[in-house]
Amino acid sequence: MSAFDNQSLQAIRGAFLDFVDDPFYISESESVRYIPDGLLIIENGAIVDFGSYSDLQKQYSHVPVTAYPAQLITPGFIDTHVHYSQYEVIASYGEQLLEWLSKYVFPTEGKFKDKAHADKIATLFFDELLKQGTTTALVFATVHPESVDAFFEEASRRNLRMISGKVLMDRNAPDYLTDSPENAYEDSKKLIQKWHKNGRLLYAVTPRFAPTSTPEQLHTAAKLLQEFPDVYMQTHISENKKEVAWVAELFPESQGYLDVYDRAGLVGEKSVFAHGVHLTDAEFKRLSAAKSAIAFCPTSNLFLGSGLFKLAQAKSTEHPVKVGLGTDVGGGTSFSMLQTANEAYKVAQLQGDSLSAFKALFLATLGGAKALSLDDKIGNFNPGKEADFIVLDPKATTLMATRNQGAAAQTLEELAQKLFGLMMLGDDRAIQAVYIAGKLAHQLAPV
Amino acid sequence: MSAFDNQSLQAIRGAFLDFVDDPFYISESESVRYIPDGLLIIENGAIVDFGSYSDLQKQYSHVPVTAYPAQLITPGFIDTHVHYSQYEVIASYGEQLLEWLSKYVFPTEGKFKDKAHADKIATLFFDELLKQGTTTALVFATVHPESVDAFFEEASRRNLRMISGKVLMDRNAPDYLTDSPENAYEDSKKLIQKWHKNGRLLYAVTPRFAPTSTPEQLHTAAKLLQEFPDVYMQTHISENKKEVAWVAELFPESQGYLDVYDRAGLVGEKSVFAHGVHLTDAEFKRLSAAKSAIAFCPTSNLFLGSGLFKLAQAKSTEHPVKVGLGTDVGGGTSFSMLQTANEAYKVAQLQGDSLSAFKALFLATLGGAKALSLDDKIGNFNPGKEADFIVLDPKATTLMATRNQGAAAQTLEELAQKLFGLMMLGDDRAIQAVYIAGKLAHQLAPV
Repeated sequence: MSAFDNQSLQAIRGAFLDFVDDPFYISESESVRYIPDGLLIIENGAIVDFGSYSDLQKQYSHVPVTAYPAQLITPGFIDTHVHYSQYEVIASYGEQLLEWLSKYVFPTEGKFKDKAHADKIATLFFDELLKQGTTTALVFATVHPESVDAFFEEASRRNLRMISGKVLMDRNAPDYLTDSPENAYEDSKKLIQKWHKNGRLLYAVTPRFAPTSTPEQLHTAAKLLQEFPDVYMQTHISENKKEVAWVAELFPESQGYLDVYDRAGLVGEKSVFAHGVHLTDAEFKRLSAAKSAIAFCPTSNLFLGSGLFKLAQAKSTEHPVKVGLGTDVGGGTSFSMLQTANEAYKVAQLQGDSLSAFKALFLATLGGAKALSLDDKIGNFNPGKEADFIVLDPKATTLMATRNQGAAAQTLEELAQKLFGLMMLGDDRAIQAVYIAGKLAHQLAPV
Repeated sequence: MSAFDNQSLQAIRGAFLDFVDDPFYISESESVRYIPDGLLIIENGAIVDFGSYSDLQKQYSHVPVTAYPAQLITPGFIDTHVHYSQYEVIASYGEQLLEWLSKYVFPTEGKFKDKAHADKIATLFFDELLKQGTTTALVFATVHPESVDAFFEEASRRNLRMISGKVLMDRNAPDYLTDSPENAYEDSKKLIQKWHKNGRLLYAVTPRFAPTSTPEQLHTAAKLLQEFPDVYMQTHISENKKEVAWVAELFPESQGYLDVYDRAGLVGEKSVFAHGVHLTDAEFKRLSAAKSAIAFCPTSNLFLGSGLFKLAQAKSTEHPVKVGLGTDVGGGTSFSMLQTANEAYKVAQLQGDSLSAFKALFLATLGGAKALSLDDKIGNFNPGKEADFIVLDPKATTLMATRNQGAAAQTLEELAQKLFGLMMLGDDRAIQAVYIAGKLAHQLAPV
């Protein structure tokens, strides 16, 4: 079965903004693509043509057009780190990472043994993601295979490009949440065979983090990656200082936190490490060399008091590391990638750096796609890519309308200021419409 | 003319939450007042009785009741630092304090010489404040007397308890924004005579900050305080490291930033200093001794990269300083005191402290009232106080409804968790109704 229904041609007209390169390395005038009056042509869920309206309109004059004259159309947001199972414990009070896991996260994850509960939360989760304009995410399920089935079943029904996997934990967690190296391997293997590349779905081998997996289990994870070389590996790293110290105790033979994963064979091109707040210079270099990615999760890093991620170092010219943005709900405090960009800006400001609106949007779109090795499929409007995109309203509230006065931006400078206002002030009320593989999947109710 | 229209008795029924003491010093079980089914009796805009419904209902059985069975009713929020003139430049990109002032703030403040512009922004500002549940604020106008008139005229029309004043700047600012010690004095004096204690309005002598006032002008400000001993003094202090260094250069004879104000005679019980991010131990002690207040502005301190305010030190038992929360729009990124509390929590977490939901709500209500020496008039539901209060909906969004499941909290522990969820996830959509002096002034449109 094709992932896309057979559709005839359709066209979207409006102001389009995406990236053709990485603005951290290539000037914004060369990496940003802004078409104030553009036309996007879609067929069977994929982009078949894209350009200015004046250039394309004659060729596609027979195609029905949906126009968004006062909005801004961008690729769908990509959330590179989120736990769907933690939907209900978002914003839980008073702890830093390790105590927060024990007190709030583990009990709520225990409920996902019940498939009906997992189904219910998966539905709420995808409703929320679409409302926020997030069309792709790399997602932690729980240790229970049922949680993975619930997640992928719902993602499949909505035809979403989603990645997830069963969490591996065989120690330092409650009994009701632990597996063993053997059944972790068997369960993961079955889930990979069932879901990986099933339609738009992809699988990630998911050891929670070094403290909750024995070295044996980490090797089991690596064995899965060898057997299924195109699946992902996702885990956490160096989020919190106590966590880093604990890992040093648990793995005395290792040369640091990343080395634990490296020795097991888990550091590769399809590995995504969440947080990395306390990575060393050597670890940044190693991630660069391995072409692994980091999910930068600012609202979570602030909420849990983890610290300030060194984005400038990760995106250095010398040792560039792929970086995406992550909400990290339930450690994060919002499913909104706009609000995540807001706090990413603040994390940079506290370190004396300014994260431009274009750089932030890049992280949330093409940068995220690159972090997930999906930039051949999603992340911008290049023909051939899947038509996941969103329609943003820069004037969604009275305050935003006053801050973002005037007609659609004509220059990159005007656009940068409007986009920045949208990111700092916007939330789901600024997400006017969401298209998944060319189909309208969410539309904001008129006020 | 009385500030309050003549009204007959009215009653509000619901779950009420306020404070009878400061939870930073007195245990929450003794400082928090929570009445799950309470009754508030209002007459002529003031609270005349307050207690549990079962205790009071017989006595007031003849009074019409407005009931909010599924909500939480608190005193109106108090924003202790905000610039109404910066409404349009909220979320301006890329600078820290001093450059941000020159690039964005000064040009926008220049527009307030035009009374019609000031009128327009004042209307937008109060619309926004009420939408966010903020019923009292200490507000910077601009250097222009017209801006003060526009502000107070609109506040008066809405019968709001508001404090503001003309900004004093006689150096280091563009010509179009500077006054002189002499006309600053004369203009301020006229405005005090016109607006201070006019209905619910109060005046604050408002030197912007030490760098933009000559020592002579600071003495002029102090002269106004001597002539009008019950007006306020508001200014900025120690927000940004470059600013602190600049003040040391400009005032070489002073023993630090606060000492500049102290030598001028500006440090007293009705002085409110915004920010204080880089205050020294000695300065905290002096503020404590002088009974001055600090406006803690977390979204601004993060957005401008100013740093992390030491709330724990300010609220120490040894040298307690009065503290309120401030949005500091346009340096701040939200008019919402809920979102301000969200980031106050994060600022505390980054320093290893946890700001409880009750403590944060205290800062936004009775704590703010104490910081503004208005705790005899507003800040809680004590009979005799003005009936400014808000109705919060802990289930304002699907996410919040899932996070905050169940009926109204019956215990303080349940309430603390719900309130925390409301603060971290809530915004103006959680502000269901706002009452000013007993009159409904804002109501959320039904979804």
